[in-house]
Amino acid sequence: MDKIKVAVLGATGMIGQRFIEMLEDHPYFEMEGLYASERSEGKRLRDVLKVRDHVYKEETLDRKIEVMDVRKIAKNDRIAFSGIPSDLAGPTETELAEAGVGVFTNAGSHRMDADVPILIPEVNPDHLFSVKDQKTFSNGGFIVTNANCSSTGIAAPLAVLNDTWGLKEVFISTYQALSGAGYPGVPSLDAVGNVVPFIKNEEEKMESELAKMLGKYSNGKFEFAGFRTFANCARVPVVDGHLESLTIRLGSEPSVEELIERFEAFRGEPQKLDLPSAPPQPIIVRREDNRPQPAFDVFAGGTGRSKGMAITLGRIRKKEEFYKIFALSHNTLRGGAGGSVLNAELAVKKNLL
Amino acid sequence: MDKIKVAVLGATGMIGQRFIEMLEDHPYFEMEGLYASERSEGKRLRDVLKVRDHVYKEETLDRKIEVMDVRKIAKNDRIAFSGIPSDLAGPTETELAEAGVGVFTNAGSHRMDADVPILIPEVNPDHLFSVKDQKTFSNGGFIVTNANCSSTGIAAPLAVLNDTWGLKEVFISTYQALSGAGYPGVPSLDAVGNVVPFIKNEEEKMESELAKMLGKYSNGKFEFAGFRTFANCARVPVVDGHLESLTIRLGSEPSVEELIERFEAFRGEPQKLDLPSAPPQPIIVRREDNRPQPAFDVFAGGTGRSKGMAITLGRIRKKEEFYKIFALSHNTLRGGAGGSVLNAELAVKKNLL
Amino acid sequence: MDKIKVAVLGATGMIGQRFIEMLEDHPYFEMEGLYASERSEGKRLRDVLKVRDHVYKEETLDRKIEVMDVRKIAKNDRIAFSGIPSDLAGPTETELAEAGVGVFTNAGSHRMDADVPILIPEVNPDHLFSVKDQKTFSNGGFIVTNANCSSTGIAAPLAVLNDTWGLKEVFISTYQALSGAGYPGVPSLDAVGNVVPFIKNEEEKMESELAKMLGKYSNGKFEFAGFRTFANCARVPVVDGHLESLTIRLGSEPSVEELIERFEAFRGEPQKLDLPSAPPQPIIVRREDNRPQPAFDVFAGGTGRSKGMAITLGRIRKKEEFYKIFALSHNTLRGGAGGSVLNAELAVKKNLL
Amino acid sequence: MDKIKVAVLGATGMIGQRFIEMLEDHPYFEMEGLYASERSEGKRLRDVLKVRDHVYKEETLDRKIEVMDVRKIAKNDRIAFSGIPSDLAGPTETELAEAGVGVFTNAGSHRMDADVPILIPEVNPDHLFSVKDQKTFSNGGFIVTNANCSSTGIAAPLAVLNDTWGLKEVFISTYQALSGAGYPGVPSLDAVGNVVPFIKNEEEKMESELAKMLGKYSNGKFEFAGFRTFANCARVPVVDGHLESLTIRLGSEPSVEELIERFEAFRGEPQKLDLPSAPPQPIIVRREDNRPQPAFDVFAGGTGRSKGMAITLGRIRKKEEFYKIFALSHNTLRGGAGGSVLNAELAVKKNLL
Repeated sequence: MDKIKVAVLGATGMIGQRFIEMLEDHPYFEMEGLYASERSEGKRLRDVLKVRDHVYKEETLDRKIEVMDVRKIAKNDRIAFSGIPSDLAGPTETELAEAGVGVFTNAGSHRMDADVPILIPEVNPDHLFSVKDQKTFSNGGFIVTNANCSSTGIAAPLAVLNDTWGLKEVFISTYQALSGAGYPGVPSLDAVGNVVPFIKNEEEKMESELAKMLGKYSNGKFEFAGFRTFANCARVPVVDGHLESLTIRLGSEPSVEELIERFEAFRGEPQKLDLPSAPPQPIIVRREDNRPQPAFDVFAGGTGRSKGMAITLGRIRKKEEFYKIFALSHNTLRGGAGGSVLNAELAVKKNLL
Repeated sequence: MDKIKVAVLGATGMIGQRFIEMLEDHPYFEMEGLYASERSEGKRLRDVLKVRDHVYKEETLDRKIEVMDVRKIAKNDRIAFSGIPSDLAGPTETELAEAGVGVFTNAGSHRMDADVPILIPEVNPDHLFSVKDQKTFSNGGFIVTNANCSSTGIAAPLAVLNDTWGLKEVFISTYQALSGAGYPGVPSLDAVGNVVPFIKNEEEKMESELAKMLGKYSNGKFEFAGFRTFANCARVPVVDGHLESLTIRLGSEPSVEELIERFEAFRGEPQKLDLPSAPPQPIIVRREDNRPQPAFDVFAGGTGRSKGMAITLGRIRKKEEFYKIFALSHNTLRGGAGGSVLNAELAVKKNLL
Repeated sequence: MDKIKVAVLGATGMIGQRFIEMLEDHPYFEMEGLYASERSEGKRLRDVLKVRDHVYKEETLDRKIEVMDVRKIAKNDRIAFSGIPSDLAGPTETELAEAGVGVFTNAGSHRMDADVPILIPEVNPDHLFSVKDQKTFSNGGFIVTNANCSSTGIAAPLAVLNDTWGLKEVFISTYQALSGAGYPGVPSLDAVGNVVPFIKNEEEKMESELAKMLGKYSNGKFEFAGFRTFANCARVPVVDGHLESLTIRLGSEPSVEELIERFEAFRGEPQKLDLPSAPPQPIIVRREDNRPQPAFDVFAGGTGRSKGMAITLGRIRKKEEFYKIFALSHNTLRGGAGGSVLNAELAVKKNLL
Repeated sequence: MDKIKVAVLGATGMIGQRFIEMLEDHPYFEMEGLYASERSEGKRLRDVLKVRDHVYKEETLDRKIEVMDVRKIAKNDRIAFSGIPSDLAGPTETELAEAGVGVFTNAGSHRMDADVPILIPEVNPDHLFSVKDQKTFSNGGFIVTNANCSSTGIAAPLAVLNDTWGLKEVFISTYQALSGAGYPGVPSLDAVGNVVPFIKNEEEKMESELAKMLGKYSNGKFEFAGFRTFANCARVPVVDGHLESLTIRLGSEPSVEELIERFEAFRGEPQKLDLPSAPPQPIIVRREDNRPQPAFDVFAGGTGRSKGMAITLGRIRKKEEFYKIFALSHNTLRGGAGGSVLNAELAVKKNLL
């Protein structure tokens, strides 16, 4: 098939550059333009580089950043991958959808909109079709969001538990990486040798997004899931990789081994459709004493395009009626750009593009 | 009064050196000898220095380390402050008590013994008298333990809640500092830019120690408190200062302001007795958005001898019937050597020495 | 004597807050006002706190920040301690001097001015009198700068060497702390697990400032010292404490022991005058294998007001005609606010205020 | 051709595991066995994993560690790649060579032996033939060492300068990564937020190894190069990647542009022979203000097998007759296991195996 032309919005930021990483040589998509604010106009990617561990191709590094221009993007691109800050993202993304562009965004602005899905293809692939109810859909434009990075890191395991045994309560504490705050983000004087137990609106986002994602879309409405979530969010001096502790009460009391078995056996729509960025096994369970760790598990998922796209669980314990689990995910790949790329891949396979 | 002669055991380690810090110029105690294993015999404190932020006196730095010798200690000292590793601590401390020495220890070996208190003077000062039931007490010897550092960091706030409204359940996640693992402890390759979600036996210790401390000692027996604790423990790249997230259910539903009021008003036995290492206000509540943080709050307590002896709470929130709180304490001062020094100060005032 | 009223400019920044730390209970000075830009007007110090290790007094934390206002400062204060960014500092400091205020500044704007001294009281106390040639001096106003933090950290040892044996060449590499870049300064994503081998204009500053400071002031002119300096500057993930490696060629070839002896014996004007912030021994030489280290030596100097005011040298080696030395200093105390406070103390004793 | 069977010695350590990384699917070599000390016998690689950023194949992770056994290795393997600690390495490697094995080692024990080369194929490929003078060579056994990691990181650029303009003096300061000290290596309490200005014997190694490598092998003897080296070595809290500052005097005074041109144009024997682990361009020059940095440049070299095998230079400046340069290399790839693998690849092409 012909590759679909895509724009990357926010190309000077952490998420924008993860989009670029995932779109190099993508089998479905061709990066047409890199867009950002006026401040960076004309700079090359190599001059604003932020991602540490990816070796970009030289020709990618030489690409120039353009000023964001809705009309231009609408003319050139079928898709816009958006890594722009949430305050800007809202109106820009609306304009793009109105102009007929399919927007796959990491920004939070539209996540709680009535007809906009928060999509994780392993969790709620059918939510994708809610875009058909967006009023811009008739001219081809629509908005699909990915969840907040800390929600994404646990959504699939929670969905597995919910589907099998019913979720009652989830007590969450997060150990979130610095890249989650973007660039320049957290000043180093607050980060080195420190933990900051506050991330603005993060706890609220987790609590509402998980309920929306694990809920149902029917009759043009999202029905939220009924379990309860209590989150405590903190920032730790880790570059990439959100770790989260979970203490969970279910509707019944399966054994730890039953949980592990279900997690490991789980395959979702991306695996069934063999989407390019889908990790072969979306939930990995480590049996070592001391895992998952950002240092070792952040890139779990595969060696190629799905690197960093799996979620790693570990230390699954049961005490009385509660289950204790640590979960780790790559917050700017699985929990950021990678999530939106996977969403767009699903949309391609579902003929929405 | 004449100062009481004391020995410091484990003088080459992090906790031992915090004992030395707190015993410099102490109004009740005089450091007679510094003891450690054979490996360090004859070295000066300055050659094995590990504590970063304390400026020891030059004559303290010049003191020589001696080999641990129960008979010598029993002959010279009324008290032994023990910062030795738990595997060694058990038998050595028993021998010292048998030889008539009052042992105040940071080691875990004897914490769950039937007649040994885990003492925090603000929490359970009456537990101190359980030492009278120790069979060595007749010749003056006994053992008093302080709690594990992560238990200490939340015991006083939990006791305040339990006494006022009744504790039901506590869901804990810890962000523990590297110094908690001693020296050399955690290899830097596991620490820099990483979180390790495993600390051996820590969750079990927290769950049992809190129940013992918040319980009662009566008729020669410890009766454990009935609330339930669920802990997830992790190590973060912070030098000193354990941060802990708490999600708590109480017997009733007071307002957040009522909680804050009770915490701030709380004064315990050390404050009433004006013990030298007692912080004027043992529980501090920060109202800023983003506190407590190790960087700013680890030394809370006072500017002199009680530096680092207060516990700082922050971000006190209520969601449905649950309370969410972040707590911070200095794990090797309040949660280590400082705890035992305060215990010994209490014992002096209670005429057990 | 009556205390001299002083203003602190830039009270929301790292250096400004170090000024406040050093001015609490100062025997000569009384902090009249804390000033910063409009953005922080009316905030209390506790709301903009940045310094990690100092425990400010509660009444200090409650002080409010005012908008900088030259006329007001000139009316109220004899001295302004300036911790404002260099781009603002230049004109503001000039205005203050014109209005009759004695300005002691950490900013770089006026350092290379023809009649402005870069003063380190142990190094070039006589340069202080160059202020008499400033045209504002007749009405009491003048400007005294302290050196760049990385210059300060080695100026005294280099002066000792120059005075005794003559300096020929100094090859310097720096390991500079994050606080040197102010707040927010270096983004954490550039700092954690990384080294940045570039600090704008730093190498040039070091090379010129050292020559000016170690030169002479005579006949109303600064004559620069003749040795050559070659600097390579880099930022490392350390909060406070600049480490510097030096490879030095002298005019003759004394033994390493002779160097150590001279460094340790050195006492300067602040020591002779017993200035309140003067460290008893300005240059400390460590003989351990692996010192100086920021972790252990950053606060060298004394336990009170002179904490962090000494320079620590270590690993003094000779290879062929070259001497190799590591030097450490506290970049925001000795190399920042502390330097200017010491300068003002000298000015008091020299009756310039 | 049939693949050559190779053993990895020290498979539980940082260097050993980098050997395993580079030998997975190697076109010339087949990993026959993983060897380490008795302590790790029978463990799987996954149980002793230390390398953060490589995603090992699952079947590699399942491989079991065997106890080192010279006879067994000699029977099974033509080559032993040695990542064992230097104190053990000396005699074991000698025995292996005597038993007819080609030893390619990262250990320092034999580096200064009279007939053992310190080989960097881009720098001194002809030194390889010195093995023919080793008395074990007649039965096929020999020893080839790679240089110390901090020497390797600058040897090629220095060789380019020496060959073109003649090296006179090199003043070096290092910013060395934690992985250079192996595992467990540096305790985290010494690493986080700190710099340690001491690495045992490192300065001496650099000064002697560079002279040997840049010298000549003729008439069965190594003749050392005549330039002078002055090194100051320090450890910084970086996981992988040695940064080094260089201040250099040459025999003449070319322009900075001439240096850059020579560095970029340089290709060595590995590039000419197209060795599997050879980076296409061995010396990369960055023109950005603030590079090289470990965060961005540690993996320079290529996207496949040569990832991390290039050296990155930056900030090339001239002041008077001196040149200032920052250099960065991956200390456990280029400066460790990768160096020895490249050496073995050269030996294959030169028919020594």
